[in-house]
Amino acid sequence: MPRNLHLFKLALLHSSLAKENSQGFKESNERLEYLGDAILGAVVADYLFRRFPYKNEGFMTEIRSRLVSREALDKLCRKMGLDKLVEYDAKRKTASSFKSIYGDAMEAFVGAVYLDRGFEFCQQFIIKEILQNHIDVEAVIETDTNYKSKIIEWSQKNNKLVRFETLEEKAGGSNKQFKVQVMINDKVISQGAGYSKKHAEQDAARRACEELEID
Amino acid sequence: MPRNLHLFKLALLHSSLAKENSQGFKESNERLEYLGDAILGAVVADYLFRRFPYKNEGFMTEIRSRLVSREALDKLCRKMGLDKLVEYDAKRKTASSFKSIYGDAMEAFVGAVYLDRGFEFCQQFIIKEILQNHIDVEAVIETDTNYKSKIIEWSQKNNKLVRFETLEEKAGGSNKQFKVQVMINDKVISQGAGYSKKHAEQDAARRACEELEID
Repeated sequence: MPRNLHLFKLALLHSSLAKENSQGFKESNERLEYLGDAILGAVVADYLFRRFPYKNEGFMTEIRSRLVSREALDKLCRKMGLDKLVEYDAKRKTASSFKSIYGDAMEAFVGAVYLDRGFEFCQQFIIKEILQNHIDVEAVIETDTNYKSKIIEWSQKNNKLVRFETLEEKAGGSNKQFKVQVMINDKVISQGAGYSKKHAEQDAARRACEELEID
Repeated sequence: MPRNLHLFKLALLHSSLAKENSQGFKESNERLEYLGDAILGAVVADYLFRRFPYKNEGFMTEIRSRLVSREALDKLCRKMGLDKLVEYDAKRKTASSFKSIYGDAMEAFVGAVYLDRGFEFCQQFIIKEILQNHIDVEAVIETDTNYKSKIIEWSQKNNKLVRFETLEEKAGGSNKQFKVQVMINDKVISQGAGYSKKHAEQDAARRACEELEID
């Protein structure tokens, strides 16, 4: 049972219904989302670090990015039934801040669990409830969705010019890190990183698919 | 006293001297750096969340980004005297992976403290040793270095074409998030984010100064 119910109510309060508190500060789940995002990042980093003792940081960065992607957190929020509890102003539902309303609420919820019960409880919550019950980590690792093909198909169908641009190659000792951005009609849509150019392209393409809501 | 000395030795081992372990995996501080980066991010997020109860997530994101910037971590590593303990292959010191050798070691050191003693100990270590003893958080918040002017001056002196490009404006409810990238001769050098276009430009310019080693 939560000790501080107020935190959990706040975690499910979208910014479209932000309420001014006694200090004149508009309260919604945005601050908790910021905190939850950081805690989730740390817990998943630790989880992957222990689970894959002989994988490099490029691999861990990439898998973490997939595990906590907007799409993954959105799905998770629905699976856990939290989506039905999110409060928002339905009249403003076309605004861009609604794009990730459930994923953001999921992060804010993690922030609330952390504040309510501390790091170790929150870590167990994330590992048991999220990484073991609701996400198939192996499947995420082995997933081979070709997001690059997806976005190229989409751009052909919609008569847009798509371009993948390599931003940097950070040559580490044994490890390299690549960064790629997806441009559509010369506008930057997304960026991605990975331990090979191919992986960075896939990461950037996945984010572009999310951004453009391509299924 | 550390419980697991091996971890701390590893945290100070640059990838230029990576050693193959019994599993054929080349060990250096890169995995610990990945973990430490995530833990540091979470601890600083929590610290700013509690310290500034009426500031929005844009403010916290920006201050955190400055507190844990490559430049800040590099300075910190030297202040704590850890730089003298970092082991690297001096013959390869021109490689790009050496650019952030001390900041990376600092992050890896945090990762080692976390694995050795757990989250709460590591959190106290970061707050007491880093945020209270070695970094002046107030000064970081109030710092008004004009990085944009710096980079413009530099580009004029070096006959380069500098351009600031706005990538996206994520309009949240009460909060906005801006992203800006710095282009030099049409090559992307860095990106930054902030709660106003001006702040995003400063953040991107600061990262460009780091990247180009402009003092």
